[in-house]
Amino acid sequence: MAEKYPLSGRNGRENAIVEIGQGSCKIGGGHFAVIAGPCSVESEEQVLSIAKEVKRCGASMLRGGAFKPRSSPYSFQGLGLDGLELLKMAKEKTGLPIVTEIMSTEYLKDFAEDVDLIQIGARNMQNFSLLKEVGKLNKPVLLKRGPSSTIDELLNAAEYVLRGGAEVILCERGVRTFETATRNTLDISAVPVLKEKSHLPVVVDPSHGTGYWNYVEAMALAATAAGADGLIIEVHSNPAEAWCDGQQSITPALFCKLMQKINAVRATLNNLGGI
Amino acid sequence: MAEKYPLSGRNGRENAIVEIGQGSCKIGGGHFAVIAGPCSVESEEQVLSIAKEVKRCGASMLRGGAFKPRSSPYSFQGLGLDGLELLKMAKEKTGLPIVTEIMSTEYLKDFAEDVDLIQIGARNMQNFSLLKEVGKLNKPVLLKRGPSSTIDELLNAAEYVLRGGAEVILCERGVRTFETATRNTLDISAVPVLKEKSHLPVVVDPSHGTGYWNYVEAMALAATAAGADGLIIEVHSNPAEAWCDGQQSITPALFCKLMQKINAVRATLNNLGGI
Amino acid sequence: MAEKYPLSGRNGRENAIVEIGQGSCKIGGGHFAVIAGPCSVESEEQVLSIAKEVKRCGASMLRGGAFKPRSSPYSFQGLGLDGLELLKMAKEKTGLPIVTEIMSTEYLKDFAEDVDLIQIGARNMQNFSLLKEVGKLNKPVLLKRGPSSTIDELLNAAEYVLRGGAEVILCERGVRTFETATRNTLDISAVPVLKEKSHLPVVVDPSHGTGYWNYVEAMALAATAAGADGLIIEVHSNPAEAWCDGQQSITPALFCKLMQKINAVRATLNNLGGI
Amino acid sequence: MAEKYPLSGRNGRENAIVEIGQGSCKIGGGHFAVIAGPCSVESEEQVLSIAKEVKRCGASMLRGGAFKPRSSPYSFQGLGLDGLELLKMAKEKTGLPIVTEIMSTEYLKDFAEDVDLIQIGARNMQNFSLLKEVGKLNKPVLLKRGPSSTIDELLNAAEYVLRGGAEVILCERGVRTFETATRNTLDISAVPVLKEKSHLPVVVDPSHGTGYWNYVEAMALAATAAGADGLIIEVHSNPAEAWCDGQQSITPALFCKLMQKINAVRATLNNLGGI
Repeated sequence: MAEKYPLSGRNGRENAIVEIGQGSCKIGGGHFAVIAGPCSVESEEQVLSIAKEVKRCGASMLRGGAFKPRSSPYSFQGLGLDGLELLKMAKEKTGLPIVTEIMSTEYLKDFAEDVDLIQIGARNMQNFSLLKEVGKLNKPVLLKRGPSSTIDELLNAAEYVLRGGAEVILCERGVRTFETATRNTLDISAVPVLKEKSHLPVVVDPSHGTGYWNYVEAMALAATAAGADGLIIEVHSNPAEAWCDGQQSITPALFCKLMQKINAVRATLNNLGGI
Repeated sequence: MAEKYPLSGRNGRENAIVEIGQGSCKIGGGHFAVIAGPCSVESEEQVLSIAKEVKRCGASMLRGGAFKPRSSPYSFQGLGLDGLELLKMAKEKTGLPIVTEIMSTEYLKDFAEDVDLIQIGARNMQNFSLLKEVGKLNKPVLLKRGPSSTIDELLNAAEYVLRGGAEVILCERGVRTFETATRNTLDISAVPVLKEKSHLPVVVDPSHGTGYWNYVEAMALAATAAGADGLIIEVHSNPAEAWCDGQQSITPALFCKLMQKINAVRATLNNLGGI
Repeated sequence: MAEKYPLSGRNGRENAIVEIGQGSCKIGGGHFAVIAGPCSVESEEQVLSIAKEVKRCGASMLRGGAFKPRSSPYSFQGLGLDGLELLKMAKEKTGLPIVTEIMSTEYLKDFAEDVDLIQIGARNMQNFSLLKEVGKLNKPVLLKRGPSSTIDELLNAAEYVLRGGAEVILCERGVRTFETATRNTLDISAVPVLKEKSHLPVVVDPSHGTGYWNYVEAMALAATAAGADGLIIEVHSNPAEAWCDGQQSITPALFCKLMQKINAVRATLNNLGGI
Repeated sequence: MAEKYPLSGRNGRENAIVEIGQGSCKIGGGHFAVIAGPCSVESEEQVLSIAKEVKRCGASMLRGGAFKPRSSPYSFQGLGLDGLELLKMAKEKTGLPIVTEIMSTEYLKDFAEDVDLIQIGARNMQNFSLLKEVGKLNKPVLLKRGPSSTIDELLNAAEYVLRGGAEVILCERGVRTFETATRNTLDISAVPVLKEKSHLPVVVDPSHGTGYWNYVEAMALAATAAGADGLIIEVHSNPAEAWCDGQQSITPALFCKLMQKINAVRATLNNLGGI
């Protein structure tokens, strides 16, 4: 019988290791990486100061939205290509590879040149045209699970990207349920399920997954203990003034403390035979 | 206070009437229209014979997928531009305006020329780049609600299209729930909710909404009685041999009987002061 | 192979007809019945005046809560046995059989004596001890689907009651989804699904199903057109002053107009070969 | 303004510590406890051998179902009072306090005498009659969250029990979503949310939460890292032969290894300032 997910499925394979930024960063197969940064790029000063802080605390990559998918056309849509320029500048000054979301095939060339890890957002997980084109760019792709997509659909979406030749990192960021105390319900069990069904690295986003900064630490640690290969966390120097998603952003100070705990949990579990 | 949905919101407006195919078909504001046809365009003979049958039974427009969004890249992806040609041919021979889904900005020009009502599929409801571009084409748009999108998000998505100048028809096609007896849970209450919050026409898709042909009649009648402005129904001459979604397609014979009932329910309720 | 639902399943059976109130009211197998009345019994005057009004408009049974299941212990819990007495009084004066919810085995004897159709509420759909005991009372049971119960679970719950000997009427009253524009998402497709899988009568509750009085008419008509055997509707003479659920209660005047439409839709569809 | 949850709410209180079994076991306020044992009590030999094993590995309490709530009346319903006797025997021989589910007020006296921690199952979370009666028994109560109950409803349900005088431990055991790769979606974020809104101890059930034994370890560790006060885990010496839920039961050997990891994660996080 044909394999269900020929490229994304486990099919007896070892855990994949994805290299980002000419190998400066690795994720999967025992390599753990934390992506941190603001929801959206706001200014040179903002993105650079956050980049330096998160690097100092141990982040491996810098995230920041240049093109922002927003439910309403009247909300801030991101700085666009100007935002991309600011991310490049921050990368030059800190050495952190950059991760940012592509929303349209219009900017394929810009992303291919400048972005180290190209994010497909949750709303575009089944934008198959975009998946196909991004898959051909020869850059690794961070594929976020749609808010009501099944794990089966996520692996099929990965298949669209992988067929183009790109490597894929899967990202759980919360599913939509009836619960209103959190923005989404972060499906931590997606981690062991994906590790069983697939060989691809799995990253968890506790910021979108909960929607509130004060739940981020607990969920980041939960994801780590459950065996995630990495985390993507929103950090802002002044969450109250953030242009978007301030409510779910933690400060650099909290981020540093969290990194300590993450590293300690990983070390502890690795000593006991691995996660 | 600013209106929540400046263009799609009710805001005291009369029900919008959308004209399709140079006014050959109207929907909204008392005009009811049924869109019928196969899941996917398969061949000249297939699409033409179904088109003639559904026209004879009272359908106002012909649907048929040329570009098919499929969860798996290994499933049939549609005939593409060849499918579009077959739809044009069926339109020429029957006079039925054609409705088909656009999946990518790559084919904007083809759709602008050939398609009478451009469908944005459920998976692309928040593909904002596509929404913006399609909104500029000067063709009406059938915007399907995402399987886990709220009504608030649907109206915001409509806002993206309307800002470009196009007219919009909203379409409820089932939301994702825990229930597995049906493919989706068709949210009939979206009809009265949308009629209250918006002035745009509302169409219901009982085929995708249930996933099984034997539930289509009951749900088509339910949507009609609830006040929908139209329906979109999958019809296939030989469902067992359909290239996709045969399980949820009804035969032309059943479609004819259903049209009779739909018309009778509408006449009855209109006589009692309207739906 | 053994039948999946030996007693509640279709298994080739004709549609069941359930008689309520010594046969004064029938439901199922072509018999349609509307149950109407207030959310909770408040006073002699209140329940009697509503009972007279809904009877005049064509309701077949009177509903009214004496024991109210409330999420919070600090909300009004119903008049209890006093409420039951008021319902009996209303029954004596109008002849309408009474329908009310049992919450505990403590009152089995009272319900067996005084209530014509014993309601098991959505929260108690899997309170198996209660199901078993109520099934032995020799009174028909109105079994409401739990807000997140599958149709499979509903039929299994019916099985618990039927084994005791009682007859069962199934009731769809909305399932819990992510949508917040309505209190629940009324699953109208449960009607054709249940009619296929089961021979038991199916009633729909558009009041709890939507949570807002202005959506009740549309959904009551939708349920009727979809083939429901009956409806249960909250009616209150002064919704703004209702002790509970006023927001989803319609006035007697609206109820009368709705009954006209319901009857007209049923007559129309019956003329065309049945729903 | 009145407090929203007068008894279960945080309202500035310290974390509650609940004592079980005459103080032999504590949970909450820094005390962590693992409840382990079979889904259902099957025989003297079965329950005793598992009890000894889980005690040896560090479990604080023994779980085991005597009365089993089952969707179908044709499934095994538990040994009833005989099962309770076997649990008592196992308690006498191991010293482990026993935790088992009450399904009906019929057995209040038996549970008051013999059970150390009385479980209210997920299906009965809003069986308010049962909540009130169990609350008067002077025994601590393990209150499981319903599969589609919000956190707000869980705290209100706790309020019903607490008003009777009993102490309450809250339990997250998975909510119902569209995902089918797991039996439920274990809402780990309920842990930090409940710790913020309430002072009551929070326990997590990774067995029902996932439905598969091979995901239990990851989720048990996730819950621990997220700050849960305890876990309830199904353990069976021979899962393949278990009378119920064998698929989600781990063996004693796996349980021992898991306990090591749980303890190590807790020690690590406590050293860094607490979870």
